[in-house]
Amino acid sequence: MKNTFGNALSVTIFGESHGAAIGAVIDGLAPGLVVDEGFIRHQLSLRRPAGRISTARREADEFQILSGVYEGRTTGTPLCIVIPNADTKSGDYQTEIARPGHADYTAKCKYHGYQDARGGGHFSGRVTAALVAAGAILIPALKGKGITIGTHVARCAGVNDAPFAFDESELKAQLLDLNEIPFAVLDAPAGEQMQAAIDAARADGDSVGGVLETAIVGLPAGIGEPWFDSIESLLSHALFSIPAVKGVEFGDGFALADRKGSEANDAFVVEDGLVLTMTNHNGGINGGIANGMPVVFRCAIKPTPTIAKVQHTIDMKKKTNVEYGGRGRHDPCIVHRARVVVDSVAALVVADLLTQRYGTECWE
Amino acid sequence: MKNTFGNALSVTIFGESHGAAIGAVIDGLAPGLVVDEGFIRHQLSLRRPAGRISTARREADEFQILSGVYEGRTTGTPLCIVIPNADTKSGDYQTEIARPGHADYTAKCKYHGYQDARGGGHFSGRVTAALVAAGAILIPALKGKGITIGTHVARCAGVNDAPFAFDESELKAQLLDLNEIPFAVLDAPAGEQMQAAIDAARADGDSVGGVLETAIVGLPAGIGEPWFDSIESLLSHALFSIPAVKGVEFGDGFALADRKGSEANDAFVVEDGLVLTMTNHNGGINGGIANGMPVVFRCAIKPTPTIAKVQHTIDMKKKTNVEYGGRGRHDPCIVHRARVVVDSVAALVVADLLTQRYGTECWE
Amino acid sequence: MKNTFGNALSVTIFGESHGAAIGAVIDGLAPGLVVDEGFIRHQLSLRRPAGRISTARREADEFQILSGVYEGRTTGTPLCIVIPNADTKSGDYQTEIARPGHADYTAKCKYHGYQDARGGGHFSGRVTAALVAAGAILIPALKGKGITIGTHVARCAGVNDAPFAFDESELKAQLLDLNEIPFAVLDAPAGEQMQAAIDAARADGDSVGGVLETAIVGLPAGIGEPWFDSIESLLSHALFSIPAVKGVEFGDGFALADRKGSEANDAFVVEDGLVLTMTNHNGGINGGIANGMPVVFRCAIKPTPTIAKVQHTIDMKKKTNVEYGGRGRHDPCIVHRARVVVDSVAALVVADLLTQRYGTECWE
Amino acid sequence: MKNTFGNALSVTIFGESHGAAIGAVIDGLAPGLVVDEGFIRHQLSLRRPAGRISTARREADEFQILSGVYEGRTTGTPLCIVIPNADTKSGDYQTEIARPGHADYTAKCKYHGYQDARGGGHFSGRVTAALVAAGAILIPALKGKGITIGTHVARCAGVNDAPFAFDESELKAQLLDLNEIPFAVLDAPAGEQMQAAIDAARADGDSVGGVLETAIVGLPAGIGEPWFDSIESLLSHALFSIPAVKGVEFGDGFALADRKGSEANDAFVVEDGLVLTMTNHNGGINGGIANGMPVVFRCAIKPTPTIAKVQHTIDMKKKTNVEYGGRGRHDPCIVHRARVVVDSVAALVVADLLTQRYGTECWE
Repeated sequence: MKNTFGNALSVTIFGESHGAAIGAVIDGLAPGLVVDEGFIRHQLSLRRPAGRISTARREADEFQILSGVYEGRTTGTPLCIVIPNADTKSGDYQTEIARPGHADYTAKCKYHGYQDARGGGHFSGRVTAALVAAGAILIPALKGKGITIGTHVARCAGVNDAPFAFDESELKAQLLDLNEIPFAVLDAPAGEQMQAAIDAARADGDSVGGVLETAIVGLPAGIGEPWFDSIESLLSHALFSIPAVKGVEFGDGFALADRKGSEANDAFVVEDGLVLTMTNHNGGINGGIANGMPVVFRCAIKPTPTIAKVQHTIDMKKKTNVEYGGRGRHDPCIVHRARVVVDSVAALVVADLLTQRYGTECWE
Repeated sequence: MKNTFGNALSVTIFGESHGAAIGAVIDGLAPGLVVDEGFIRHQLSLRRPAGRISTARREADEFQILSGVYEGRTTGTPLCIVIPNADTKSGDYQTEIARPGHADYTAKCKYHGYQDARGGGHFSGRVTAALVAAGAILIPALKGKGITIGTHVARCAGVNDAPFAFDESELKAQLLDLNEIPFAVLDAPAGEQMQAAIDAARADGDSVGGVLETAIVGLPAGIGEPWFDSIESLLSHALFSIPAVKGVEFGDGFALADRKGSEANDAFVVEDGLVLTMTNHNGGINGGIANGMPVVFRCAIKPTPTIAKVQHTIDMKKKTNVEYGGRGRHDPCIVHRARVVVDSVAALVVADLLTQRYGTECWE
Repeated sequence: MKNTFGNALSVTIFGESHGAAIGAVIDGLAPGLVVDEGFIRHQLSLRRPAGRISTARREADEFQILSGVYEGRTTGTPLCIVIPNADTKSGDYQTEIARPGHADYTAKCKYHGYQDARGGGHFSGRVTAALVAAGAILIPALKGKGITIGTHVARCAGVNDAPFAFDESELKAQLLDLNEIPFAVLDAPAGEQMQAAIDAARADGDSVGGVLETAIVGLPAGIGEPWFDSIESLLSHALFSIPAVKGVEFGDGFALADRKGSEANDAFVVEDGLVLTMTNHNGGINGGIANGMPVVFRCAIKPTPTIAKVQHTIDMKKKTNVEYGGRGRHDPCIVHRARVVVDSVAALVVADLLTQRYGTECWE
Repeated sequence: MKNTFGNALSVTIFGESHGAAIGAVIDGLAPGLVVDEGFIRHQLSLRRPAGRISTARREADEFQILSGVYEGRTTGTPLCIVIPNADTKSGDYQTEIARPGHADYTAKCKYHGYQDARGGGHFSGRVTAALVAAGAILIPALKGKGITIGTHVARCAGVNDAPFAFDESELKAQLLDLNEIPFAVLDAPAGEQMQAAIDAARADGDSVGGVLETAIVGLPAGIGEPWFDSIESLLSHALFSIPAVKGVEFGDGFALADRKGSEANDAFVVEDGLVLTMTNHNGGINGGIANGMPVVFRCAIKPTPTIAKVQHTIDMKKKTNVEYGGRGRHDPCIVHRARVVVDSVAALVVADLLTQRYGTECWE
């Protein structure tokens, strides 16, 4: 449903980049969940631009919870969280120039010119702050049920994290650390190298992309609602809603295409009465349902489309070809900022699947 | 919703591999669409196993349309199509052995042992025949609106099609040809080589995977319902419901992660009053909405999990470790059979998006 | 969604009066529910026309369960049940004459003439057999959870049952009896009188209507998903989908409009640690949520629109005024046949609400 | 979906009586609709308490549109409208006393004590202001398409409007007048009499109910999505979400139960090439689809449950029987205030059905 996602637990998002506010309504929450405003603030800070490798737009992200929370806990009725827009400079945008790689042209086709085009309007990455706020309600609740989600920048500007992929034997510790680090890498020097490469792209009037890798640990075997609400289906649906995501793969993903069955199957084994798999090529999912191993996936993030370099494009009103150099504030890279958005939508999907299986009573 | 997908136009699927029948109910169809039973038969034949590179199970796929069609046209009320199962040999399956890479274990966790485990039950690839039948209702209707969908085996068993990617300048002709070819490649010799490699894997008791590339030509600019019902979101949701799909990417996909913005953006250009892009790195989609260029995506298909080779796994009842060699009938490769399933779910998504935008009156 | 209803547990219906078959797909069923084919047959027999007070169409209602049941129990995957149409006489119907009170004209407006108009097509009461079959899967499962549903003919052809309303002190016994009686009344002589009045209307070429009263006993306090999925909202949604239902009221319903607050409120009382209400004017529902008392509602059933008497109407093709006397087979009354349909949709709603609250694990 | 309603066009509501704000998000709006803030203010004023016949709570209902509107028109992206709560006096409420007829007890059962119980919380009639605001976006757009909606107090405190039912020959004029009148009756003296009766009930520490009658004029024949999304199903679903509605009937409703078929059918007739019915016993709906005649329905509104008179009830914490006299501010009658809520949800349903049929392009 357009701007509502989820079955038993749903989130509805709204807002434009330069409008009054953005926000989200979460419905289907179990009552009694602790809402930690400090954690919401922390999560928003991970998304917020900072330093030379980000846009100069500075938003305090002061949020207000309008409903659904009473005495610090969810009531079970819809929770609306609103984040006002403060630092908006609409003069920066020439709204009849279709910025390449952006939704300017497609939004005009869809909305016949009535869209709020300032700063990308409803298609701005700014709206992801609403998703982060929503996720920040759910992530602590999931932790309380033994489910941890974490994402690292596996690759950025051509530089790999070390290792590129999570080390499954140390996964839990890795995930806990990641959420404290602004530029989330497993290997700090690799992170430095990435940031230097981002800054070089910025200096060159250009931008870079990368790959995020995410793990969900602690999801019980049996979760998932195939066919259509398989874990992969719901996660990819939510992930591809994040601007700039152009690829999603689970487990070994595209690499599986070149494997033999004998190399791709994960052997089951019973250890101390627990069922495990000896490898995790399938990313913790068989037949769309969790098998109890970590759910692992990767998202390809394209380079930010707004760049300073001059590009060929069109004036949509005059229907003429023009040259255009980005003059708005923009990011030379959003990979590191997107990771908390990925964690947040993953939390929404997991919470929805748990609620589908166990109901709204499941959280106590 | 579990086994129902779509907003304005929806499909509901049901059935088990060794039950009485599988089938689909399509709702939200415009009235008056011509239903071509010969075309349904043709599409089912493209999915049906054939030759040494497929399972020995032979289903005639005789279907029956129970409702929603009158005098050869859709009525506008729900269309139910049923495909009975004929060639079932349940004795082949040891249902307490969790076949690695299959849903045996996860289905047992989810359904507490009440699932129909014979032949994979509801998680069998057999159920994709229902999706193909549903797609075969929609594909001709889309063609009537100028929208063509086609998929080729871009890579299989380590062999690339030539070219690996569609040639956008010849795309329309390529797509029209593809639907006539049982093993859908752009380059026949490459296809021969792939099939030889599949047969070699079969002889070795093993299986192989591959990559499918799909193009949708003729989708009008402005189609798509972001945030959550972006074209990428809906397509990936449906695609990841297909068993064995472990990765989905749009346009240049994961390759975009290593590009600069200046290399990833598609410059807009006006030619003879039409808006085009000079490249198509973004796969015809900006901000989740069609820009009028071909929508291009690729699916990673993992190797078939059932293999003859002996594997380590567990007996779910006894909770013991066992060795297991597949004895059921199975496919050394399903990449070439999956392509018509991919076309079909793509048709469902496109038809849903058109119906959302233009209503049920849009087809006349 | 058009022909799909329900959130966590949904039913999709299909079929036309004179097509191959009608049927239903139920999704979201808990696994392991016993499926009692004898009970399904019994429920279908309660809906089936019988005697002089019904249409002469005689359908055996031989059903087939195509999926979702294994060894007599639900698997948890979609259950498709199909009921073929056998006794169809399409020659009886003049499809260009808009029968007054029927959907002939409105269906033509909606489907532009492509609808299957024979016997009312998809708008025939025949399709309610699919709802009855679906309900017959759920009613025993609800009984197993202590929830009983029953309906009596409170009024028909101007004759009241005695009493008109359930006696709440004897409700459980009344409900258990009702499901065994073909013409469901609390007072047998009142039932005889109603049937005589129906037969008199038939002899006169006319038809009659009535009121059904339903009680749901055993629904736990706290069930209901307001605002929009209040118990009243979901029940009325489903009930008004039944052809001929033109009014629905809960508790004292329209009579409450003339009461004072002091006469309409139900005082709470604690008895032996249990919370009850001293009266039940609100029909067991406060704020859209069950309060633990019986949920009581009534449906107004209009007289069957097809009658033998000559009526004024139009020829839709010629756009001329004509006179028309019903020549098809039809019922002088459907009130008594509708009651099992009402029980069935009530069971669907209750099962959905329980599943929303407790998940698919709730039935064990 | 709990607090989201609608298919192609949906509304999500949130808020508690004494929380920060209430509000609504509308999604699926066509772009370019004029948003008339003066009209929103007018509609909110019709719902707002006034005079001695209403609660003493006085809310300015200053609203803020946070998104989805640009330069006075809808953008086509989600429109969020927020109405802060200002005049809240929570000390008035003893939250452990279950007020009879209210959701206090059922909400506690559902939310385990985590609900915001102040002033009825999410179950307060206050939340209907969000529905009115949402409706005020749609009502002018519907008018632009020739569709008018209006409601009058057909009966209140035992006094009938004169006439009780709309006069179909003067319907359009009647509807246009109604929206200007705070206490909406067709006959001013009858309205005076009703208000005197309300005031007498107030003086007596009691409350009264009534019946609202609504007409929708101009809905094109062919609108409606049976089975489950019949006009009656969707309207009743939305209407029963309004607190205090306990009955809904279409056309002659419950009176049809006592008619013969020959008295209940509406004869079709062609006049000047237009298809009409000679009577409108079926309220403009056949088979769940509009036939082009006015859609007419009535809602039974129960008397306000909060009264000053002493009542028997329970202390939910102590599980003891107590006596209780309402001390909060409350209304002796909400029938006249509810009518604009009824108009608003009717507008939502009609707009959704039009969007389902004609898409989001249908409004231009």
